[in-house]
Amino acid sequence: MRRGRRPGGENTRALILEAARTEFAATGYDGTSIRGVARTAGVDPRLVHHYFDGKSDLFAAVMAVPINPGARVMHALEGPPQGLGARLVAVFIETWDDPANQAALIGAVRTTLTNHEAAQQVREFVTQEIMSRVVDAYPATSTLTAAERELRVGLVTTQMVGLAMTRYILRLPEISDLCAEELIARIGPAIQGILETGSAAGTPLVGQPAKD
Amino acid sequence: MRRGRRPGGENTRALILEAARTEFAATGYDGTSIRGVARTAGVDPRLVHHYFDGKSDLFAAVMAVPINPGARVMHALEGPPQGLGARLVAVFIETWDDPANQAALIGAVRTTLTNHEAAQQVREFVTQEIMSRVVDAYPATSTLTAAERELRVGLVTTQMVGLAMTRYILRLPEISDLCAEELIARIGPAIQGILETGSAAGTPLVGQPAKD
Repeated sequence: MRRGRRPGGENTRALILEAARTEFAATGYDGTSIRGVARTAGVDPRLVHHYFDGKSDLFAAVMAVPINPGARVMHALEGPPQGLGARLVAVFIETWDDPANQAALIGAVRTTLTNHEAAQQVREFVTQEIMSRVVDAYPATSTLTAAERELRVGLVTTQMVGLAMTRYILRLPEISDLCAEELIARIGPAIQGILETGSAAGTPLVGQPAKD
Repeated sequence: MRRGRRPGGENTRALILEAARTEFAATGYDGTSIRGVARTAGVDPRLVHHYFDGKSDLFAAVMAVPINPGARVMHALEGPPQGLGARLVAVFIETWDDPANQAALIGAVRTTLTNHEAAQQVREFVTQEIMSRVVDAYPATSTLTAAERELRVGLVTTQMVGLAMTRYILRLPEISDLCAEELIARIGPAIQGILETGSAAGTPLVGQPAKD
């Protein structure tokens, strides 16, 4: 969410964006802080918060993506845990199908795939700000080992990356011609299965690690 | 599989490859025939078969991939239907993890993602030569409507593209650090579920279309 302008605002905003671009490139998504960006830009951290709704919004702006994916995913987390998988797929498709976002999101994916530094930043952003929150929103995951939790973050990411690639980048007609409802019905349960059991098939794994 | 050389063989092989590159670019993977490539190269079709093990081998050579993915997937199809999903994931990881193939496969993916014509060819190749064969190898799929069969081809492709992207292109540590066995156990059942029920979660869908 962009807040109100004030005199000289566009210059200040551009200055902060440029500093953020430098910081993300130098230290990655995880290593960047609002405080560090403010220091590099030579402004007060409150000014960064004035223009950007936190680190994830700042990153979206640097990647020239008009929405804050971190805020979008928060919507998917609201509601009963048994519908989490379907809600994640629904929010994902709604965001990507929107003509106001699609070109920018495709551009961000292309940057990620051709630029090594950008790939590292996007990877950290997607796992930290989106997929980790999804996994942690499912109640039972708090009892998992750290390794099993990470594996589930990786598996949910694999599902969403596969969908983004086949529907929006490769434009496989078998997937891109489907309506949102069909995809939610087919892929939602796979995400749900990963959250509940660690497997997209939703069957508990033998010897599945859990904290004692 | 490359067969024995003969005098002048390298020139003839290069001539055929160049003709194939032209044909694939002009008419796509589906629209290209061995006969058409031979005509463009000005050689007898038997000479094309002498150097290349069919259209899929020719395409792999044009994409500079040292293995024929179409032949690899044939291995996965052998065996009982209930293990098909796991065997597909196993062959996929074995092929991609092999240092002799990996750089070339990553190169082919990058070409696909940055070149519109190549994307079209690879999409047709992957759905026709690999994923359609996997879906058709599962016995019950012969009773499905054409639309449902295509949807399953798309869903299996989405799973494999997601895995290729997170493990080899984006190199997400949560996925790329895992051993093959772990991934086969986690993703194999999702492929199996799609083949059996049309959903990665392996639960039959209400109102699932079938031929009468």
